[in-house]
Amino acid sequence: MNSNLHSESAGYTRVDDAAIGQFQRILGVECVFADTETRTQYGHDETEDLSYPPEVVLKPETPNEIADILRYCHERLIPVTPIGARTGLSGGALSLYGGVGLSLERLNRILNIDTQNLQATVEPGVITQVFQEAVEEHGLMYAPDPASRGSCFIGGNIAENSGGPRALKYGVTKDFVLNLEVVLPTGEIIWTGANTLKNSTGYNLTQLMVGSEGTLGIVTKAVMKLVPKPAHNMLMLVSFNSAEKACEAVSAVFRAGITPSALEFMERDAIDWTLKFVDDVSLPVGEEVAAHLLVEVDGNNPEQLMAECEQISALMEEYGATEILFADDEQQKNALWKLRRKVGEAVKAHSVYKEEDTVVPRYALPVLLKEVKDIGRKYGFQSVCYGHAGDGNLHVNIIRGELSEEQWNVTLEKGIREIFELTASLGGTISGEHGIGLVQRPFLDVVFSSTHRNIFQQIKQAFDPNGILNPGKAI
Amino acid sequence: MNSNLHSESAGYTRVDDAAIGQFQRILGVECVFADTETRTQYGHDETEDLSYPPEVVLKPETPNEIADILRYCHERLIPVTPIGARTGLSGGALSLYGGVGLSLERLNRILNIDTQNLQATVEPGVITQVFQEAVEEHGLMYAPDPASRGSCFIGGNIAENSGGPRALKYGVTKDFVLNLEVVLPTGEIIWTGANTLKNSTGYNLTQLMVGSEGTLGIVTKAVMKLVPKPAHNMLMLVSFNSAEKACEAVSAVFRAGITPSALEFMERDAIDWTLKFVDDVSLPVGEEVAAHLLVEVDGNNPEQLMAECEQISALMEEYGATEILFADDEQQKNALWKLRRKVGEAVKAHSVYKEEDTVVPRYALPVLLKEVKDIGRKYGFQSVCYGHAGDGNLHVNIIRGELSEEQWNVTLEKGIREIFELTASLGGTISGEHGIGLVQRPFLDVVFSSTHRNIFQQIKQAFDPNGILNPGKAI
Repeated sequence: MNSNLHSESAGYTRVDDAAIGQFQRILGVECVFADTETRTQYGHDETEDLSYPPEVVLKPETPNEIADILRYCHERLIPVTPIGARTGLSGGALSLYGGVGLSLERLNRILNIDTQNLQATVEPGVITQVFQEAVEEHGLMYAPDPASRGSCFIGGNIAENSGGPRALKYGVTKDFVLNLEVVLPTGEIIWTGANTLKNSTGYNLTQLMVGSEGTLGIVTKAVMKLVPKPAHNMLMLVSFNSAEKACEAVSAVFRAGITPSALEFMERDAIDWTLKFVDDVSLPVGEEVAAHLLVEVDGNNPEQLMAECEQISALMEEYGATEILFADDEQQKNALWKLRRKVGEAVKAHSVYKEEDTVVPRYALPVLLKEVKDIGRKYGFQSVCYGHAGDGNLHVNIIRGELSEEQWNVTLEKGIREIFELTASLGGTISGEHGIGLVQRPFLDVVFSSTHRNIFQQIKQAFDPNGILNPGKAI
Repeated sequence: MNSNLHSESAGYTRVDDAAIGQFQRILGVECVFADTETRTQYGHDETEDLSYPPEVVLKPETPNEIADILRYCHERLIPVTPIGARTGLSGGALSLYGGVGLSLERLNRILNIDTQNLQATVEPGVITQVFQEAVEEHGLMYAPDPASRGSCFIGGNIAENSGGPRALKYGVTKDFVLNLEVVLPTGEIIWTGANTLKNSTGYNLTQLMVGSEGTLGIVTKAVMKLVPKPAHNMLMLVSFNSAEKACEAVSAVFRAGITPSALEFMERDAIDWTLKFVDDVSLPVGEEVAAHLLVEVDGNNPEQLMAECEQISALMEEYGATEILFADDEQQKNALWKLRRKVGEAVKAHSVYKEEDTVVPRYALPVLLKEVKDIGRKYGFQSVCYGHAGDGNLHVNIIRGELSEEQWNVTLEKGIREIFELTASLGGTISGEHGIGLVQRPFLDVVFSSTHRNIFQQIKQAFDPNGILNPGKAI
């Protein structure tokens, strides 16, 4: 647990009775929550055990209400933290300096599914899976599928530029965002672009906004690209006795000209812990198995998918695969996907941990994995690794285990820094899909020079001259 | 022809002998060109008949030389215009205020084709087609293919976020840029991102740089994504007696779940003029034909492509196609593509013209086409339309014809404004792939509020506090 940084010492104003009164006038009394229970609830997300409650939780329903709130807070220097479904893994939604916790949960409508143009307009509080299922009814697909898709919001996905397994073939959130309605910290409302697939008109504020972690503006509507939903897919689980060999097999698939719709990696511990954590999936795992790859292909032509699977199987065996299990039906597919999606929760339930979201060019994955283990041995920590191998995105979960307070809170940071220096040296970076948020901020200097960080600060200043929006995050 | 705006009146310094001496010290005497012939040559691109020569043309070879030049010009307030292959269609490379014309032609090396990670590192002066052919030798594809690909530079493609026919399936330039080395106007050098497919680390300066038309920094290296080259493609030319019906057929293809690798539209005049312009392609065109669609599908499975072509043919007939011609071999494919790629040059050779680069959601294309013609009738101008129909990107070529000086230089602007207001009202914008450059700047207010433009200015300020880089362009 943590407590808020003192807002006055950072130059911010506390939320006093006058402010509460103003918020009640803007939103109505029933949308303003200053009670401890609500504030505590909105003071944490899924990032470790961190807790930074806002001084007041606001639940607006319209862009204009949000504009009124921001205009007021801009004038009074009250910090505002946008809050989505609180499924984040980097602490982006934590109210570091107290102030207003601005929940987007009431902006939760799918405004339009445009089957003529293959695009949809949604509010930020729509749950990702709800959106996916709504467009599927029209034979369409919204591909980004973070593990938390059953509860996370589209708005949060935009803020963190979320990925998920199918990012591999279809792209991450940024690749699906065409246009955004944004309330600026000064209370003005703009659309960032146009509802078109191509756009060479002015600076790309749409892409600047995606992944900016709620520090530049509040997204209130998003026009998202959709793609035709492929009619068929096939899923296979492949066992390896060497985790590094499994990683080596990954890039071989792409070099053979195949683009799977997912290519996921799980270390042995990740599988074992998840099998214990979910009670309705069973899977025999041989003693020698060190890692699994979960490989999905999709498309409209079943014969072609079958041919791709055969080609992939042959490659996997070349790299030492010991067993290849094909999912026979939807139920088996769902079971395997459940196993993969629950890894994060299972690891969390197993031990106190810190999750790093390393990403490298995919061919460097075996090197990353090996050296992460070496660094662990040097600093005395155990790690469990899994992630989106096809994208070179490896989640490194560092397990508290028997580490002392001193080791966990002080020494470990050096080890994490070493892991990040490694990713950078391999052409990678420190977050692939979780964002910098609060917890990765101390490591920004690993990948950005002071010149670079200075540009970030000036861009922030252009949008948010008083620095009220999600202070202490991302940059 | 135009002459430069007076640089001193805009607060800039002229290039004097001291500056020339300094450039000669940085680059060597042989890389500094102050003669009239060179300056004239580098004072125009493919935009109408505009001419804005720089006071001096510099041809550096390294990022450090560029950094030295920019640092000097930043201190002295000398404007610097980056110049690529001068194939631009919005005047982005014109030295509006004189100053330095910074040619990137000597940074022309493909530094690395990484077949393990499917990416390549190139310098900005590499010709797009040269790059495409180099990666094809490894079985890979760089998909963006502007009509000028035989002469345009990758750096210019990045500056304007260029597209081309295959953008439809594979994306535009921005979708292929992973990471950029950039010399900032202050002379510092940064890498904008990482060499990874996913990245949620800090603001997305990579995407901010793409399409910024050389106003924020000079790209000196680009890490580009590559994809496996599909083994097969099929190409068909479809005739329609109604241009609007042809446009209607376009979105039907996508709604049927097919994503062609190209779907191009050409009005009758575009075809006729191009057939006259290129002397080695002949094509019988029936009297009633009003427009053609050129449709390409690609993939690894010829049977599937055949099935898609049959499905597309059936759809086309539903929308009134009168003839469908399949290209039998590579030679026929090349001939049809040549016809399409040469339309711009053919129109240019036929008459003085202005080219607008409208883009809308694709289902709105028939409405756009119809109303563009209505607006033309209202203002008394003829237009020839063609473009990337699958992307909703319609090039509207306004023909000078019999228009008076007054009509051409004054009245026409009102008509163009009306066309742009139309595209905006359809959810589109004023440039799909050519950029704003110089010639679309008077129309920015059609799509951007003053708040929005103010943010552009402040972002510009963050990168280029003295405003020396490509002044008068884009924003």
